[in-house]
Amino acid sequence: MPMPKFFIAASNIFGGMAYIEGKDAEHLRVLRLKRGEKLIVCDGEGNDYECRLTSSGPEGAEAEIIRVIPSRSEPDVFAQVYAAFPKGDKAETIVQKSVELGASRIVFFRSERCVSRPDAAAIIKKLERWNKISEEAAKQCGRASIPEVGIEQSFETMLEHASQAQLGLFFWEEEHLRSMKKTLEAAGDGITSVSIVTGPEGGFEKHEADTAEKAGLIPVSLGKRILRCETAPLCALAALMYHTNNLE
Amino acid sequence: MPMPKFFIAASNIFGGMAYIEGKDAEHLRVLRLKRGEKLIVCDGEGNDYECRLTSSGPEGAEAEIIRVIPSRSEPDVFAQVYAAFPKGDKAETIVQKSVELGASRIVFFRSERCVSRPDAAAIIKKLERWNKISEEAAKQCGRASIPEVGIEQSFETMLEHASQAQLGLFFWEEEHLRSMKKTLEAAGDGITSVSIVTGPEGGFEKHEADTAEKAGLIPVSLGKRILRCETAPLCALAALMYHTNNLE
Repeated sequence: MPMPKFFIAASNIFGGMAYIEGKDAEHLRVLRLKRGEKLIVCDGEGNDYECRLTSSGPEGAEAEIIRVIPSRSEPDVFAQVYAAFPKGDKAETIVQKSVELGASRIVFFRSERCVSRPDAAAIIKKLERWNKISEEAAKQCGRASIPEVGIEQSFETMLEHASQAQLGLFFWEEEHLRSMKKTLEAAGDGITSVSIVTGPEGGFEKHEADTAEKAGLIPVSLGKRILRCETAPLCALAALMYHTNNLE
Repeated sequence: MPMPKFFIAASNIFGGMAYIEGKDAEHLRVLRLKRGEKLIVCDGEGNDYECRLTSSGPEGAEAEIIRVIPSRSEPDVFAQVYAAFPKGDKAETIVQKSVELGASRIVFFRSERCVSRPDAAAIIKKLERWNKISEEAAKQCGRASIPEVGIEQSFETMLEHASQAQLGLFFWEEEHLRSMKKTLEAAGDGITSVSIVTGPEGGFEKHEADTAEKAGLIPVSLGKRILRCETAPLCALAALMYHTNNLE
């Protein structure tokens, strides 16, 4: 059995010790972990620590840090998924699968053909739920960090942020010349950050693609088949991780 | 608006004419397509025909074939997804997304750690439903053929069939040496058929991986993150299509 893994706040790791509280401490007792047994503590920021349990009680548990484990589950490319608000529970699918596939951040935004137009109150609730899904997915797939899920206030701010990556890919079904592969190949080795921008059910408008290109993003194709709005970001992310040797 | 597209039996296309019956003929009348207007007829075997409507009535419709359209939406690699029976409705996700991503066939099988063990009656109903999902997904994403969804009687027959492809990839989370990418690169250009074999929720047993290797499949890794059983085949398929230039 692999060592049990606990995500705790980075502020609870100091002086060679990790302090485990609340639900995690309870979970530790449920697992019947004894003093001297080993566990992994993860600060959710990319660092894993191999620890030995020194005490465990109703108030919490303490563990001594044996060594820092270099995280092998984090990809070496910082991939951000920018997805237009989809209908129904597709956003949840996008969050869960993007985390598994190695995204570092997932951001939703509104574009012209978005059918889903949640109001501010609904968005606050959704963000809470999406971040919870991200945390669960990160734990399940063994990631060392929990990708943040956020939203953009407008299409324009999305473009501004997405274009800050080394490579900003704007997936547009009417782009027939530039493919994702040719664009990645042209960028050469050592790609460190990529933004993947995908549209809603009905795709992007031409003027949105034009604006994106002016903002520094590259309109690219994902091939001849029309992918659903929740499939496109996952396909692009899998291809990116494959290209950058992060599926090895 | 793109031309309406109808999938009809290949046996209904002959003598330069396409004969549209039943529900499709009804759908044609709902669309109010008039004599002389154009439509696409697809035989579900990879051939598209541009047609002109010559007659339409309650008994059916006839359309004259103007030209054969080479299908650009079909990948040039024959990819078969062999997935162990998953729990719940994950099989439906696998079918829908595999069709979008370009699989030519999807096959479910039973392996040792499968929790889902449907009986024969349940499987017949499921197969019907899965093939319907495949048809809908094929139409939606613009494919020229409808991938068949099938099942294997045993793990052994699965291995026998999966190993008939030029390259049989057996995804196993305990394989740490061989990656999918290195295996595809070693196979060189011109890969024409690939089997993608993925496990159930709990993964494969070691002896299953050994048997698979003896049968000619190659145990490979999909990276350090543990993918869910419905994510793994989609990730592998996206990577394969990317590698073989079928996302261009």
